[in-house]
Amino acid sequence: MTAEPASRSGRRRRGARSSVAAAGRSVDYRNLRNPMPPMAAFSDDEVEAIHGAALDVLEELGIKVLLDEARSVFRSGGAHVDDSTEMVRIGRDMVADALCAAPRSISMKAGCRSRDIKLELGRLVFQPGAGAPHTTDLKRGRRPGTAADFSELVKLTQHFDVLHMIPPLIEPQDVPVNVRHYETLRAQLTLSDKVPFVFARGTGQVQECFELLRDFRGLSDDDFHQRPHCYTIINTNSPRQLDIPMAQGLIDFARAGQVSIVTPFCLMGAMAPVTVAGALTLSHAEALAAITLTQLARPGAPVCYGTFTSNVDMKSGAPAFGTPEHFKASLGAGQLARKLGLPWRCATGSAANINDAQSANETQFGLWGSLLAGATVVIHAAGWLEGGLTVSYEKFITDMEVLQMVAELCTQTTCNVDDIALDALREVQPGGHFFGATHTMQRYQTAFYEPMAGDWSNFGTWTERGSKDANERATGTWQSILNEFTGPELDGDRVEQLMASIHKRTAAGGAPPES
Amino acid sequence: MTAEPASRSGRRRRGARSSVAAAGRSVDYRNLRNPMPPMAAFSDDEVEAIHGAALDVLEELGIKVLLDEARSVFRSGGAHVDDSTEMVRIGRDMVADALCAAPRSISMKAGCRSRDIKLELGRLVFQPGAGAPHTTDLKRGRRPGTAADFSELVKLTQHFDVLHMIPPLIEPQDVPVNVRHYETLRAQLTLSDKVPFVFARGTGQVQECFELLRDFRGLSDDDFHQRPHCYTIINTNSPRQLDIPMAQGLIDFARAGQVSIVTPFCLMGAMAPVTVAGALTLSHAEALAAITLTQLARPGAPVCYGTFTSNVDMKSGAPAFGTPEHFKASLGAGQLARKLGLPWRCATGSAANINDAQSANETQFGLWGSLLAGATVVIHAAGWLEGGLTVSYEKFITDMEVLQMVAELCTQTTCNVDDIALDALREVQPGGHFFGATHTMQRYQTAFYEPMAGDWSNFGTWTERGSKDANERATGTWQSILNEFTGPELDGDRVEQLMASIHKRTAAGGAPPES
Repeated sequence: MTAEPASRSGRRRRGARSSVAAAGRSVDYRNLRNPMPPMAAFSDDEVEAIHGAALDVLEELGIKVLLDEARSVFRSGGAHVDDSTEMVRIGRDMVADALCAAPRSISMKAGCRSRDIKLELGRLVFQPGAGAPHTTDLKRGRRPGTAADFSELVKLTQHFDVLHMIPPLIEPQDVPVNVRHYETLRAQLTLSDKVPFVFARGTGQVQECFELLRDFRGLSDDDFHQRPHCYTIINTNSPRQLDIPMAQGLIDFARAGQVSIVTPFCLMGAMAPVTVAGALTLSHAEALAAITLTQLARPGAPVCYGTFTSNVDMKSGAPAFGTPEHFKASLGAGQLARKLGLPWRCATGSAANINDAQSANETQFGLWGSLLAGATVVIHAAGWLEGGLTVSYEKFITDMEVLQMVAELCTQTTCNVDDIALDALREVQPGGHFFGATHTMQRYQTAFYEPMAGDWSNFGTWTERGSKDANERATGTWQSILNEFTGPELDGDRVEQLMASIHKRTAAGGAPPES
Repeated sequence: MTAEPASRSGRRRRGARSSVAAAGRSVDYRNLRNPMPPMAAFSDDEVEAIHGAALDVLEELGIKVLLDEARSVFRSGGAHVDDSTEMVRIGRDMVADALCAAPRSISMKAGCRSRDIKLELGRLVFQPGAGAPHTTDLKRGRRPGTAADFSELVKLTQHFDVLHMIPPLIEPQDVPVNVRHYETLRAQLTLSDKVPFVFARGTGQVQECFELLRDFRGLSDDDFHQRPHCYTIINTNSPRQLDIPMAQGLIDFARAGQVSIVTPFCLMGAMAPVTVAGALTLSHAEALAAITLTQLARPGAPVCYGTFTSNVDMKSGAPAFGTPEHFKASLGAGQLARKLGLPWRCATGSAANINDAQSANETQFGLWGSLLAGATVVIHAAGWLEGGLTVSYEKFITDMEVLQMVAELCTQTTCNVDDIALDALREVQPGGHFFGATHTMQRYQTAFYEPMAGDWSNFGTWTERGSKDANERATGTWQSILNEFTGPELDGDRVEQLMASIHKRTAAGGAPPES
């Protein structure tokens, strides 16, 4: 594990936009509000029925909680706990209290103020694909993820303003598990000033990451605890089970005032009922249990509701994403999130094995499901292939085009007298054209979104240029971004301190993950 | 020009679904209502401002109308007409009267009752890509369109229930222009029972097509005129010009009670102002002029409002589709259509040169623009490449997947006690799975949409099967559909009559197109 040379140097660097970005036109992609009208899958009564059924599940059936401490916390909060079966039954009053205590709006601190984000209903925050064991690109092929890949993907995430948080992009499998958390945090802090992710792999690793992050941001312990500076993702073991690292994560992040994004992963027909309503009932119950645990650990702790409910291929059991059922489940989850009033996380995805038309269509279809569901955070929005087993550099680029186009939709479409352009309509005669019109000349350089992955040249020109498809062209784009990458403005002393602390902790053996 | 052997034979054939379609699951894709909440680009005041400015354009600047008869019709209706400049200035009262007279709902007759469609706000009707000079597929390459290609694409259009109307798919350039309308009508009537398209290329061709269609459907002249049995698409020559065949088409279709879909093609920065509001003002003005002409020709004539407003690449002038500006223009057009209360036509599209991630992303992005704009008819929804210069067989298939998934969203997501599945949640223990649950076993065969173009197999299986991308796999799909095509149920006598009439008309020299 080594630090990038540039971040070791101690000089302050400018957060310059790469020349890969379009010149002339400037649109703020950093603070997005979702302009889409929310779409409903269910009637209000049906939403109440799902919510009520989820409360029944928690009260009557309960959830299995593998961590002793978590069961103790639940017991202290009034739950019926059976330590011999590890089952926890949670009353609806406890859930109601937790939902009262959980904040409706979460302000997260990034590495600089312009990267701070707010998580609340109505906001729109994007994350690229996450959690993949493999990575792939056309130059180097499909391979197990490495620390070098992780750093490159952090750079790509940093480059695009429309990505607001760093997720656990890929698993750097060349780094031993007891020191892997140092490397992923180092890459995030030194190559990006966006909100970083910390894996909930046991209290040991989590506390170390909190300390390293606290010191890198130059905060006191109190400052750090007052406001969230990082987040984790909590997956339940559906159905109805919360394992040790996840339960520890919920407690540790809550007590430290850091954000847990609760995401039951409920594949209809596999870990959840085969129906949208049934899978959502289970997902909702599990999310409510996890949210309740955070609020018992620290009332008012920042927590996001979340869901990842899609279906499987019933012939093979293979997971599928960006399907109609996935879309409908997202809509239903959005209705449940709005009922709770909490910020929430949704996801798109693709089961395709290559960055082709299927891959583009599934990811975009799932994206629209998330957007029309009114999701606050949309994860796996770029690069995610094979149902999450691989992050593709090229798909990262082609999906970014869609996210940037969505961000353009978040801007107002102006309609003043100049926009309506009666003067231009007077100027151009019937059958003429507007290319040279005064109105056009004043605006043409900034009027339109310029494509990054798209090639609008005609067939002849495109053929002369080598008949490259979007996937091939995207290789050049990510290579340029990485070659020209300058990274965020950093305090050299803090970087040195971070590296020294990591070296010391590494020498001491690191911290093993909890499993 | 030859008839397909099967349609000559005189035997009645069953409209059997191809075995390519999924078995077990049955969802009605023929009658769709748009379930998406409409999205606004403009405030109500801004919509009024655009409408008002469009009326100003018609009243003050006017529109150039190249057809003498159309100017006479406008003059009789009260317009200020200058025959020396061919300019027609249309008062807002005339437009208001026309908008009162135009029907809000249009019931169109197809070849069989289950293919009849209704055009009105709230309905959702899809058409594949249209009007391309070229066609392409991976087996035969990119080529000028032929009659054989046209027939094949009609078969593909017929195969998919989610396509409701046949558009002018590609231009069969191997058929002389004076008899080309016979061939395209023959293919549509004998290979499909969906609503057919007739090109407005002059009164001669149009009247012949009306006669052939009337006789093929076994109708009297009166019957035919009472109800629409076909439609045309009217493109203005933006800016502010209506050419001879288009003006003739508006009059001929209106008088015959057949449908004109009015579609100004306003590329921002080229044939229209560079702003969304300006381009929409022009598009709206031209559409209102054309609608007014139909209602002057025959009050109550069926007419669709329409728009195709996208932007160009301001560096090259190349048209672009599925862009943020295209999306916003669709939303604005939807607001204008709802203000008028008329059914309306919107479009998606792609400027990509191959069926890759760009192609999929642009077409789907434009599709969502159309859906959220509340479009009644969405054209170019499958197969359209190169900004309309080519229809791709493979893209036809991969885009169909998206349309079918959208059609799935039009179905209700049920949420009764059985769907919520508390029994299944009781049955499956924490950490278990639902694959074998009773609830799953009862439903798994029909629970989910089955992909047609998508491949959900894992990377290993996919690699063993030849690492085929979606584009390559789609070749097999369209080949199977064409190989197994059986076509609609036909009256053999009518087919023979149609062919005899076409032969006779062909021998007499056909009818030259008007230009």
